[in-house]
Order: sequence, then structure tokens, then C-alpha cells
Amino acid sequence: MPKIWSESIKTHRQAVRDAALDTAASLVGERGLTGVTMSHIAERAGIGRATLYKYFSDVEAILVAWHQRQIARHLSLLTAAKDRATDPLDRLTVVLETYALISQEHHGTELAALLHRGEHVEHAREHLKGFVETLIADGARSGDLREDVPPAELATFCLHALTAADGMRSKAAARRLVQVTLAGLLRHS
Amino acid sequence: MPKIWSESIKTHRQAVRDAALDTAASLVGERGLTGVTMSHIAERAGIGRATLYKYFSDVEAILVAWHQRQIARHLSLLTAAKDRATDPLDRLTVVLETYALISQEHHGTELAALLHRGEHVEHAREHLKGFVETLIADGARSGDLREDVPPAELATFCLHALTAADGMRSKAAARRLVQVTLAGLLRHS
Repeated sequence: MPKIWSESIKTHRQAVRDAALDTAASLVGERGLTGVTMSHIAERAGIGRATLYKYFSDVEAILVAWHQRQIARHLSLLTAAKDRATDPLDRLTVVLETYALISQEHHGTELAALLHRGEHVEHAREHLKGFVETLIADGARSGDLREDVPPAELATFCLHALTAADGMRSKAAARRLVQVTLAGLLRHS
Repeated sequence: MPKIWSESIKTHRQAVRDAALDTAASLVGERGLTGVTMSHIAERAGIGRATLYKYFSDVEAILVAWHQRQIARHLSLLTAAKDRATDPLDRLTVVLETYALISQEHHGTELAALLHRGEHVEHAREHLKGFVETLIADGARSGDLREDVPPAELATFCLHALTAADGMRSKAAARRLVQVTLAGLLRHS
């Protein structure tokens, strides 16, 4: 097959996949987890039902794929946030703010409760923990952050503390949460 | 019925109930959630199966009752902790340490994940949040804690941050977590 064709097929497949994921997520948002079938998704996305089954075995498989895409996007946002600053403390601050705002926007739903029990989340959680741990270790080396508690424990503390954002109504409250969390990490000599 | 008899019946009923709860919890610990039936519980607790059904409709009802009893015990532990100190900051510290140790001992299991979705948990969570919020407001008034963030937000922060204890292996790590969390609450002037 000429390369231009295989590229075109790849793009087409990606487009079908993305349409299925977007449609499934918005239908679940409207109708709840139990109110959505493969037929609903196929119809709304404008894909044949048989085609949809070539891509995904059931609704849960679509939602897991959607969630994996969300996680990948969130990790990119966090990596991009890190690159917006050079000072270790600024880097950590901007990453934690981004994480708090993501938690605030995307959690607390029935869908999140289901998906967060999935095994695919464990890997992302470990990755995220390692990412924050490295930033914290940098901050301890630069003298900004406390050194009496291991960076791994501080990273776990941060990520748990910031999940509180999902019950907060305003962005200002989420930012205050980040400031309180950071205050726990600072070196107070 | 003479009072001594009705008291005796009440005590007996409580004993049957407690035996059912203890047995169900330990069987689920051994065999997992799906491996336990009403017959298993009746047999191990030494109660007739028909009697057990007079008290509880199914295994889930027993586990919810068990969890309600656990929550009540934990809230008593927290209240008792508060009464061990008089200074506002000491009170908050001892309560948060108690909460961290409870989180560390009792969570992270399949059973906890099931039970924590129950509606009966919501009320306890609100109660606990109010309890911690009051201690934080006292600490702000006494000048120990920050006043730039509302006590309700600080209470939410604390309770989320301390759930990190459930992945920590040592009591020392749980205590460090409490110190880091408290550092987030302190007034730094």
C-alpha cells in the first residue's frame, strides 16, 4: 500500500475512534452510565453500529479508552505547565495549580468514580507521583522546600490534598488550596 | 414485661447483632466480598440462618451496619482525642494524628471502596468535616492558624491530605504526614 494511503487510513481510523470517545462521554454526561448503549453511540457519532463494534467491544471499553485519552491530555498539560517556569518553586506551583484545576473540572462524577477503579489509572497515578516527586526533590535541593520528609511522601501528600479541589466551587478556592498545600512543603527555618 | 426482662432481651439482640457484624467483616477479610453468604455468616457466628434473616436482609446490609458501627467508633475516638488536650493547636494535632492512624489502618481495601460509596457515609463525612472545621476556627482565633483561608476550606484540605496515610507503611510516616498537613494550616507571619 502506498504510504499516502496507509497514512490516510490511519487518520481515518483515529477520527472514527475520537468520534466514538467524544460521543460516548457526552452521552454518559447526559443520560448517566446505565442509559447509554452501543447503538446510541453509533447513531449520534454517525458511525455504523457494525463499524463501532470493530473498534470497541462494549460501552465500558469506549469509556476506558476515553479516560486513557483524558489522562494522556492531562499529563501533557502538566508537562507543559512545568516548562512555563524555570525556578523550582515556580515550576512546582504552576504544576500543582494545573493539577488542582484539572481535579476541579473533571472529577466528582459517577463516571469518574467508575473509571478511577480501573487498572489503567494505576500506571498514570504512579507516573504523576514520580513527576511531582522529581519537582519536589529539585525544590528541596534549591533550598525552598523542607528536607525532613522524603520527596515521595510529600508528593503523595500533595496529590491527595489537591483532590480536595473537586468539591470547591471557584477557581480562587482551588488556588487557595494550592497555596495551603505548598505551605506544607516549604522549608520554615 | 418486667424491665429486667426487656433489658435482657435488648442485650441479647445487641449481642446477636454484634456477632453477625464481626463475623461478616472477618469472613470478607478472608474470602473477599463475593465469597461470603448469609449461611457462612450464620454458621461461623453460631446463629441460626433463619434468625440471621430476622436481623438482616442480606450480606450487604450486614456490611453497611458493620461500617456504621466502625464510623461511630472512629468518631468517638476522635472526640476522645480532642478531650486529651486543651490548647487549640494541640487539640487539632491530636485529632489529626488520630484520623491519620485510622485512615492508615482501615482503608485501601476492596471492602472500604464498596462501603465508601454508600449514602450512610455522606452524613459521617459532613459531621467529621464540621468537627475539624470547629477546631481549625478555634486555632485561627487563638492566633496559631492562618486566617486568610476559610476554616471550611482548610478542613477539606486536611481531610483529603490525611487520606494519603492509607498508602503509608509506618506510623512514623503517618505522623510526618500530619506535621506536613499542619504546616499548611499554620500562620506564618
